[in-house]
Amino acid sequence: MATTRVVIGVDVGGTGTKAALVDLSGEVLARSVRPTDIAAGTKGVITVVEDLLARSDEVDVDVAAIGVGASGFINAETGSVTFSPNLTYDDPYIEEALKSRTGLPVIVDNDANAAAWGERAFGGAKGCDHLALITLGTGVGSGFIVEGHLIRGWSGAGAELGHIVIDPDGPECPCGLRGCLEQFVGGLAIARDARALLGEFPDSQLAEVEASAITAETVGRAATDYDELSLTVLRRAGRALGIGLSNVVNLFDPEVIVLAGSVMGAGEPFLGAARDELFRMTNAQRRRPVRIDATSLGKDAGIIGAAALAIDERLGGIR
Amino acid sequence: MATTRVVIGVDVGGTGTKAALVDLSGEVLARSVRPTDIAAGTKGVITVVEDLLARSDEVDVDVAAIGVGASGFINAETGSVTFSPNLTYDDPYIEEALKSRTGLPVIVDNDANAAAWGERAFGGAKGCDHLALITLGTGVGSGFIVEGHLIRGWSGAGAELGHIVIDPDGPECPCGLRGCLEQFVGGLAIARDARALLGEFPDSQLAEVEASAITAETVGRAATDYDELSLTVLRRAGRALGIGLSNVVNLFDPEVIVLAGSVMGAGEPFLGAARDELFRMTNAQRRRPVRIDATSLGKDAGIIGAAALAIDERLGGIR
Repeated sequence: MATTRVVIGVDVGGTGTKAALVDLSGEVLARSVRPTDIAAGTKGVITVVEDLLARSDEVDVDVAAIGVGASGFINAETGSVTFSPNLTYDDPYIEEALKSRTGLPVIVDNDANAAAWGERAFGGAKGCDHLALITLGTGVGSGFIVEGHLIRGWSGAGAELGHIVIDPDGPECPCGLRGCLEQFVGGLAIARDARALLGEFPDSQLAEVEASAITAETVGRAATDYDELSLTVLRRAGRALGIGLSNVVNLFDPEVIVLAGSVMGAGEPFLGAARDELFRMTNAQRRRPVRIDATSLGKDAGIIGAAALAIDERLGGIR
Repeated sequence: MATTRVVIGVDVGGTGTKAALVDLSGEVLARSVRPTDIAAGTKGVITVVEDLLARSDEVDVDVAAIGVGASGFINAETGSVTFSPNLTYDDPYIEEALKSRTGLPVIVDNDANAAAWGERAFGGAKGCDHLALITLGTGVGSGFIVEGHLIRGWSGAGAELGHIVIDPDGPECPCGLRGCLEQFVGGLAIARDARALLGEFPDSQLAEVEASAITAETVGRAATDYDELSLTVLRRAGRALGIGLSNVVNLFDPEVIVLAGSVMGAGEPFLGAARDELFRMTNAQRRRPVRIDATSLGKDAGIIGAAALAIDERLGGIR
């Protein structure tokens, strides 16, 4: 029997389902990644978990628990999905599905909650008891740690910063509301806003590609070449993010805000504008400036966070 | 020596400083009230406390602790005021000032936090572990209980729902920001918005009084006579409150939202619009409807809440 105890951390996003064998100090030992089938999210989770279990022998480890961070509204108590606008889970009872197949203890939580927990367990905000983590991807997710506890809400549908309304006359959101933060700051919103400005900036780099090929990533890349359209869109999105962060500060008063997600790649025009706006706002309220960090766990934030949850909530926190 | 142990609960607002001897089951035994001197908030607290201590003999009780709910940003750990835009505390270290004078254990917290705690201890939301309380007065305050714990934040400046931005182009707020929820929903905002509409509604009841005499209360009263201007203003404010409540639901996912404060007196045109808007929004997100209650403690919510905090956090929770 192998002597090294590990956990499996799984991160289910709209594009990829990523998993890894993670040791009790947060190190990734082996990976399994596959594209997410958006019609069968749970099947994808089972596949990567079974793959890693099969390989645990060759890496010479014992898997002791499984943690899953999944996009959508998740009830962590039952380990099930209650609402997921962007991704269908063929079996919403993920915890039960994994437990019955593997016999291992399983925890399932929202992906941003998992990432927040990972930052506190193994990241740059280690040990921090008042932490907000915002994931800036296709959409906007968030996890809040208050006095060392994750905020999950009564029915597990809390911590949805992406869906607070910051402009009641703003664009419609797939969640059913209008003017959600995600509609100003998410990757899809940035791409949409760039497309909408093509007429005003006929000389933009982006006018040279198919409108449908414009993504937050292409906007970010064009901005590094000082493309006016892209800079305009990203600065506007950054200011909206600053407003969202000010709302976080007024409600949660965190010690640190950690930012994660692919849209971070849009860089300074976006993040600088957000930081400037937040600084202006906290200063106007005579609050002390809030520390803003980029995640130190990079693309592994979700996997490592899910693993940290499994360690702390299913193995009693042995590290 | 008297046998009945009681605590003193104090509620410091912009207009009145109210205090009472409260027994361990939440009953008010004697009161002391005085107008708040907005240049010397702490002195007022000391006066009502000393008044009640002097009278505790005649009521035949022993005062065991003091709880204070004070408007402003309060650091509950140090029992001190960190920022208070509407009221100056001559001594911001309220806990220390009361402790040194009385020798009793003292707790000081934000007034809305105290009211939230009172609802959970002695009010209609007894025992509820996921609770949001919103005070609708001159301004807007809030207290959030998550998994049975008050959210105070890292520096004690959290739970300020009145200052989340719901419209970046909205009116300026004394806190330094623009478009805060309080600027759409607070009593001062309602009065201001009514004044601004006088030109459009020359037949309004409110056109008969001095513009400076218009308050949220007069608007509420005129609305009961179907005054068009007043109904328009209150419905608009109610819709903004609904948006604020939706943001609360998306972040905290409470079991119950309790509403308190003088602006509740504006009644159905205001509260009905808020409830409708929130229902529309939760429904669009396929969330379950959220229970909304009016406070069962009425004007004593602040006093009883401060007393409950003293009982639970300074006397170990004996009730």
